[in-house]
Amino acid sequence: MNHEELKILLDQMKDGKIGVEEVIEKITYLPFTDLGHTKVDNHRELRTGYPEVIFCEGKTIIQVKDIIAHMLSGSSNILATRATPEMFDAVKDISRDAEYHPLAKTITIRRKESKPPDTYIAIVSAGTSDIPVAEEAAITAGIFGNTVKKIFDVGVAGIHRLYDNLAEIRKARVIIVVAGMEGALPSIVGGLVDKPVIAVPTSIGYGASFGGLSALLGMLTSCASGVCVVNIDNGFGAGYLASMINKL
Amino acid sequence: MNHEELKILLDQMKDGKIGVEEVIEKITYLPFTDLGHTKVDNHRELRTGYPEVIFCEGKTIIQVKDIIAHMLSGSSNILATRATPEMFDAVKDISRDAEYHPLAKTITIRRKESKPPDTYIAIVSAGTSDIPVAEEAAITAGIFGNTVKKIFDVGVAGIHRLYDNLAEIRKARVIIVVAGMEGALPSIVGGLVDKPVIAVPTSIGYGASFGGLSALLGMLTSCASGVCVVNIDNGFGAGYLASMINKL
Amino acid sequence: MNHEELKILLDQMKDGKIGVEEVIEKITYLPFTDLGHTKVDNHRELRTGYPEVIFCEGKTIIQVKDIIAHMLSGSSNILATRATPEMFDAVKDISRDAEYHPLAKTITIRRKESKPPDTYIAIVSAGTSDIPVAEEAAITAGIFGNTVKKIFDVGVAGIHRLYDNLAEIRKARVIIVVAGMEGALPSIVGGLVDKPVIAVPTSIGYGASFGGLSALLGMLTSCASGVCVVNIDNGFGAGYLASMINKL
Amino acid sequence: MNHEELKILLDQMKDGKIGVEEVIEKITYLPFTDLGHTKVDNHRELRTGYPEVIFCEGKTIIQVKDIIAHMLSGSSNILATRATPEMFDAVKDISRDAEYHPLAKTITIRRKESKPPDTYIAIVSAGTSDIPVAEEAAITAGIFGNTVKKIFDVGVAGIHRLYDNLAEIRKARVIIVVAGMEGALPSIVGGLVDKPVIAVPTSIGYGASFGGLSALLGMLTSCASGVCVVNIDNGFGAGYLASMINKL
Amino acid sequence: MNHEELKILLDQMKDGKIGVEEVIEKITYLPFTDLGHTKVDNHRELRTGYPEVIFCEGKTIIQVKDIIAHMLSGSSNILATRATPEMFDAVKDISRDAEYHPLAKTITIRRKESKPPDTYIAIVSAGTSDIPVAEEAAITAGIFGNTVKKIFDVGVAGIHRLYDNLAEIRKARVIIVVAGMEGALPSIVGGLVDKPVIAVPTSIGYGASFGGLSALLGMLTSCASGVCVVNIDNGFGAGYLASMINKL
Amino acid sequence: MNHEELKILLDQMKDGKIGVEEVIEKITYLPFTDLGHTKVDNHRELRTGYPEVIFCEGKTIIQVKDIIAHMLSGSSNILATRATPEMFDAVKDISRDAEYHPLAKTITIRRKESKPPDTYIAIVSAGTSDIPVAEEAAITAGIFGNTVKKIFDVGVAGIHRLYDNLAEIRKARVIIVVAGMEGALPSIVGGLVDKPVIAVPTSIGYGASFGGLSALLGMLTSCASGVCVVNIDNGFGAGYLASMINKL
Amino acid sequence: MNHEELKILLDQMKDGKIGVEEVIEKITYLPFTDLGHTKVDNHRELRTGYPEVIFCEGKTIIQVKDIIAHMLSGSSNILATRATPEMFDAVKDISRDAEYHPLAKTITIRRKESKPPDTYIAIVSAGTSDIPVAEEAAITAGIFGNTVKKIFDVGVAGIHRLYDNLAEIRKARVIIVVAGMEGALPSIVGGLVDKPVIAVPTSIGYGASFGGLSALLGMLTSCASGVCVVNIDNGFGAGYLASMINKL
Amino acid sequence: MNHEELKILLDQMKDGKIGVEEVIEKITYLPFTDLGHTKVDNHRELRTGYPEVIFCEGKTIIQVKDIIAHMLSGSSNILATRATPEMFDAVKDISRDAEYHPLAKTITIRRKESKPPDTYIAIVSAGTSDIPVAEEAAITAGIFGNTVKKIFDVGVAGIHRLYDNLAEIRKARVIIVVAGMEGALPSIVGGLVDKPVIAVPTSIGYGASFGGLSALLGMLTSCASGVCVVNIDNGFGAGYLASMINKL
Repeated sequence: MNHEELKILLDQMKDGKIGVEEVIEKITYLPFTDLGHTKVDNHRELRTGYPEVIFCEGKTIIQVKDIIAHMLSGSSNILATRATPEMFDAVKDISRDAEYHPLAKTITIRRKESKPPDTYIAIVSAGTSDIPVAEEAAITAGIFGNTVKKIFDVGVAGIHRLYDNLAEIRKARVIIVVAGMEGALPSIVGGLVDKPVIAVPTSIGYGASFGGLSALLGMLTSCASGVCVVNIDNGFGAGYLASMINKL
Repeated sequence: MNHEELKILLDQMKDGKIGVEEVIEKITYLPFTDLGHTKVDNHRELRTGYPEVIFCEGKTIIQVKDIIAHMLSGSSNILATRATPEMFDAVKDISRDAEYHPLAKTITIRRKESKPPDTYIAIVSAGTSDIPVAEEAAITAGIFGNTVKKIFDVGVAGIHRLYDNLAEIRKARVIIVVAGMEGALPSIVGGLVDKPVIAVPTSIGYGASFGGLSALLGMLTSCASGVCVVNIDNGFGAGYLASMINKL
Repeated sequence: MNHEELKILLDQMKDGKIGVEEVIEKITYLPFTDLGHTKVDNHRELRTGYPEVIFCEGKTIIQVKDIIAHMLSGSSNILATRATPEMFDAVKDISRDAEYHPLAKTITIRRKESKPPDTYIAIVSAGTSDIPVAEEAAITAGIFGNTVKKIFDVGVAGIHRLYDNLAEIRKARVIIVVAGMEGALPSIVGGLVDKPVIAVPTSIGYGASFGGLSALLGMLTSCASGVCVVNIDNGFGAGYLASMINKL
Repeated sequence: MNHEELKILLDQMKDGKIGVEEVIEKITYLPFTDLGHTKVDNHRELRTGYPEVIFCEGKTIIQVKDIIAHMLSGSSNILATRATPEMFDAVKDISRDAEYHPLAKTITIRRKESKPPDTYIAIVSAGTSDIPVAEEAAITAGIFGNTVKKIFDVGVAGIHRLYDNLAEIRKARVIIVVAGMEGALPSIVGGLVDKPVIAVPTSIGYGASFGGLSALLGMLTSCASGVCVVNIDNGFGAGYLASMINKL
Repeated sequence: MNHEELKILLDQMKDGKIGVEEVIEKITYLPFTDLGHTKVDNHRELRTGYPEVIFCEGKTIIQVKDIIAHMLSGSSNILATRATPEMFDAVKDISRDAEYHPLAKTITIRRKESKPPDTYIAIVSAGTSDIPVAEEAAITAGIFGNTVKKIFDVGVAGIHRLYDNLAEIRKARVIIVVAGMEGALPSIVGGLVDKPVIAVPTSIGYGASFGGLSALLGMLTSCASGVCVVNIDNGFGAGYLASMINKL
Repeated sequence: MNHEELKILLDQMKDGKIGVEEVIEKITYLPFTDLGHTKVDNHRELRTGYPEVIFCEGKTIIQVKDIIAHMLSGSSNILATRATPEMFDAVKDISRDAEYHPLAKTITIRRKESKPPDTYIAIVSAGTSDIPVAEEAAITAGIFGNTVKKIFDVGVAGIHRLYDNLAEIRKARVIIVVAGMEGALPSIVGGLVDKPVIAVPTSIGYGASFGGLSALLGMLTSCASGVCVVNIDNGFGAGYLASMINKL
Repeated sequence: MNHEELKILLDQMKDGKIGVEEVIEKITYLPFTDLGHTKVDNHRELRTGYPEVIFCEGKTIIQVKDIIAHMLSGSSNILATRATPEMFDAVKDISRDAEYHPLAKTITIRRKESKPPDTYIAIVSAGTSDIPVAEEAAITAGIFGNTVKKIFDVGVAGIHRLYDNLAEIRKARVIIVVAGMEGALPSIVGGLVDKPVIAVPTSIGYGASFGGLSALLGMLTSCASGVCVVNIDNGFGAGYLASMINKL
Repeated sequence: MNHEELKILLDQMKDGKIGVEEVIEKITYLPFTDLGHTKVDNHRELRTGYPEVIFCEGKTIIQVKDIIAHMLSGSSNILATRATPEMFDAVKDISRDAEYHPLAKTITIRRKESKPPDTYIAIVSAGTSDIPVAEEAAITAGIFGNTVKKIFDVGVAGIHRLYDNLAEIRKARVIIVVAGMEGALPSIVGGLVDKPVIAVPTSIGYGASFGGLSALLGMLTSCASGVCVVNIDNGFGAGYLASMINKL
């Protein structure tokens, strides 16, 4: 609530159009619901343009179910990431529309269909083992109403596979690049396109990969401009940000 | 060059409209100029939408001057980052339009004025000491033809300073957030806006800051969505990416 | 034993009021009981104001039971942290008053009730997944005779949830803030209150969280003053220190 | 501003006792002064009980002078840490009461004298080289109106030096322990007292000290309870927190 | 084989006392037996004063049994560390004298009894959880013919437990100190004795212990002189070195 | 395809010897087969001299089987590393010639026999526990048509075992040295031979080995010249590179 | 000296052809010259095929001069790396043939000219700032008698610059690839050639480059086969190894 | 003071042989002198067998001079490490016997000559650049009354230089091995001798040496037994411990 809005509100109250308590409620109303273990952030969609997303890791099945049950009272599409099949079973009980995506380990409940933008998001991944992270990005971008094109397994060891798909990549509005090991692919893509590149390091690799550290550092120090980075294995974060940019 | 373009080119050659050598030149022409020490990438603007930018650190004054001299034969705006005053003196000799920005340590040569987009980029910084990095981002976004609004020194220790400027931040098309130490500001901003947030960790801090590592890790693990990260102290990278997004 | 006390003791001996052996015993008496594997520190309560607490990780069920059996011969409240349900079963056999707190993984045996101070300890946590650590802090502060108020799931991604509870937080005498991932919450709280803040990083997170390192570094480099830090996941340490401060 | 205060304010406005603009000002008035490079946080003393402190590292002499000049328009005591002698020279020009403490590298301007609490803060340091950090803590606690007792050079290699001073340490209300290298002293002190211990790791040491990392990790993993940790070399933070606890 | 020995050998050969082949054998004879997977080092006792010890981690049960079977053809005492109960079962089949020490996870086969030196080795450990590492050191020192005195659970949180045992520690010829977490005990002991201290960091701890790193760094940067360090959890290495020093 | 080749191709087309589509196909033909999850790189043998190798870690059994099924339509020898016995069972169904090497965890399908070079590759390993990595290198070098000599368990603790085998090592054309723990063996070997040494750090060790980091750093900082390093546990990479050098 | 050689020698002695002392000398003669501070390794060329190279960092000017003075008594080409201009001045006094290469910071004294192999070494570098390391490699390979082709400034941000030079790179017998920042170039090159690639990470970069760590980890985890790695900034090591391979 | 001594003392007092104050003084007398900045530990020689040693790094010239002036009132030999020439100039003013050792950067004042043990300490160093650390160890061992034999520049790249000196090394009672870079020398020496080896990693090296970390980790994970480690560059600590062992 900014200065102008506040002035209008207070003027309305001064003019007797609305009461003191109503103003107080407008100003101080809790925009969340307290489930005991969790305070569901009801106004997040108003504030950030996106409904709250459930990160299931470290939560119990009961907690996940409770949160989704509460969110079903609203009308937003629902996304739960890092969900186990057991969580899905529990969610299925309260929503027949719930879908599970085993590779991406996400639950989605699609409740309203919005017309996607004309532009699309390209999701490029380096190797077969990076697909789960790329899929999490794809599911996320999809549930938020975007068209996604997937170009998988085009890592730098056989760089011609990338070139063959370059036209499609270049036509996207924003590009997600998922890679583990040395994480070189975003540098290559970034040097070939005129669109924002969101780099996602994965924990794929062994030895000096140190759980994704090598890919992470490589992407952060990329010599290509126009590349930004999200957390290791954070397909969701990349899909969310890409959606934000695609819808600008 | 994709399949369609290649077909057209070859058909033209087959029809005798253009010669073999001309086709070869089109396909293989070196899109760079070799200065001996440096291969200036002439086609980068065509390929990525932006001219090559000179990263001066680790280059000699002569090398910087050579590269800029070559680029002056084109017509793009010129940006050199991490430049010393001595480098600027040398550049001044070959271009009277060169300007030096001491805080941001950048040289700019503005040669064509493009109408900026109606939207603007907000650059938010946490502390006074983070200003040089924030300024590098501002100069970069500016030279690439964007309107920039700066909101400096609004770090989380006095978070009301941020709230007072929130309306202006929220109206931006894309937001750069620069912070050192614990790097918490992007998380706060990310939770309050519906626009992409580009987080820039700085090396400001001491002890457990470990040269910006604490801010970097904090930004990567941000619990707010819609936040991406560039390298420590990489104001240029943030300004470049923000420009890309602002102009979509 | 300081200079004055020693003089009194020796004067008494010189005057024949007490014997040499008695003095020796007073000076050198072992203030611990040796169980073979463990030397239980009987005088810790005298020395530090708190009885010894059993850290169960790395101990066998037998060892935990032995130590508690010995401590039951005294009259202090008993606290065992990082205890498994199996350990609790063994302890239950020797004390019907033993209680197990599954989330906090602690065993408590309450044997004397002391009037708590009028002031209270606020325990603030960032996310649902941080609750086990926050609960360990709460149980610890409680068994040591403090009133605790819990404000859970008010992390920085929806910072208004924090503001709604700010009055209650500000009225506490000392505040524990538990957070994983980027660990930004203590910085925010620290900038809004005039009370000591004990920050507890948790190992919640993935990728660049590196097992709690990102939260730990973030809290150590907090730009808010009045914030101190304990070990990753060390809810006990925070509850213990908060109790100490609350009772000053 | 909480619910009750807001209701009173709005009721007053409704009753015509105060105007709309006055309410707006009360709600949204900027509690800081914008110096361009810095937003001085005027209300911090109201909010956190302490005036803003100037961290000089990374600021220019001009900036430091500007900030202090502004703060001199108020009446709080002024503290600037990590200040150079050159900064002090500039500050001396605008305040004859300014004092410089070369070991602690701090500037203080004492402008009001408050009666200190009856209790005192003990500052214990391990070695001669740790004194600058310990002095920063002492100056900080002093300017905020506390009595300080210093017990320096009592590190664990000659632990009897600590025992000789134990009575004085035990009588303090809160204890700051400063140590570099292996940082073992807080563990020892923490096991001998019944007061909160604030541990300050220093960057003193070489080789495997890794700039204070060894002391930091040692203090975080201390087996003594009642110990909390601040950043490496953060004497200011320890003094500030100790003052907060001493004045509870 | 040094110069003198070589000369004698060659002179003997020249004088016809021994043959060429015999000399060759003496010079080049393989002082190991090749088991295919392992080359057992038969001459290690001659060279270093100690027979080869079997580190079982990463070896199969068959390999361990093979190596021990070969060593039983000699007459040395046999020590196998990090052995599983299953390995012991296999070894038991070929040597009825084999003993298993479950805490220390070692197998010993005692085959000759040597008179131990009059002096003894003190093994001091900080906490109950450090006992397995301390026991590995004790078993190692014992099988190599030393008298060992164990002083367990005397960590720095209750430092008086150490003082009570100080006389016995000071009378040892060499002292092993085993500690996890902050690893401060070797510094304390090192400041109180005039004997070599071998510090063994353990992986006991959590959070910022980082698998023993905090204890390791603390011990390496100890401010007490006369302290050296072996690898994390390397009780064997400490017992071996202590035996070497005790027998000098 | 370089300039000359392109000119010939285009001249042929101009002369009508080949058609436009044929040229396009030659230039742009996809040198990979898309299996959905994987793009098999058919031309890798042409480009790099070696067929694609399947890294099985992180792939499903189905994916591994699919890729091998596709490769069986070619005629190259097939190598799959980090394969589980379950993967082998699936592969066995489609190729009776498939062999599994349990220690090296590799699947090989030998389909054409090439005459190996006269020179051989020496594979030297430090300890019994390093054998699996050494075997992966041996299988890799073997399937690519090289003669391999294995010299195992000659680590620096009994360096005479190395000397006894030095002649055989020195006669190799290229030497692979596999070692964990401190990784000193490549330095020793590198100082004794006049052939390239490929050092492979292994994750064997504990404590300060940090999963192979100690061996890796030791090999990178080797004071012997002529030593290069591959990733931790990367026996395949070493075998591949050695084959490349052996066949030059 | 192997078994056969030893037998011949001893047989000769037995037959009186050579004396005992002569044999001893042959077996034990010191193949180095002791300069007090340094033991110059005279036989290294015999043993490893290359003369000793002087690493000047950490040596005094006098020491460097002494070592070179001694080596001038032999006839090998002389190479000193990491040499300062002051060292060169001192060396110039004793050898008029000494040359200094300022970029590479090396001193060479060419004393015999050997016919280089027909094949050549390609040295590829990513950026202008990487040239000093690449030049060190070039000087090293040159002084050891190899033909070198340099392809500089072809980093991945403008990957077409690499493709334009690919034919020349592919024709080399061995390829050195020098890159800082994310170090992606060796992966690209490795995927395009059928020759060994020696990757050299440089310390060029800032922030998350951590002194070359990002490039180092990226190269070690390269998904291209046939790539090995030397130490950060170790141009010498790469040139040395490349020479070894080129001369096989 | 142990139980027996205390009993004797108290019995004497009871019998009137000594007074109460005298007993108090004996028990509580401060065994240090407080210089303000430093508490000189007068009883350290009684307690640990060695006088206090001055570590000069981080101390001012005045402080060093003060401490030495105080120690000159005693009769012990004096050792100051990491001393600058300026410190020596100041010390020279108060003691004509003071000597400065520029390589080792130590000041010694020899005041009493004790007969050294018959056995000696061998100090082995790997490279010319490691000599300063080795010299610090030599000076330390010397001032504490030991015979030292130095064997310098025998690193593993030319391992025959070590073998030539092996007899002298093997005859020592304890061996110090100093090495930087990969730090492999202690492993080699440890496998060849039957005496304790004290390994000293140095910060010599570059790139992946990370300031001595590679050598430190290598020495800690040495596969040779009988090896212990002190801090990076800690020549003093090694010399001190070696003296302790040599004098047992």
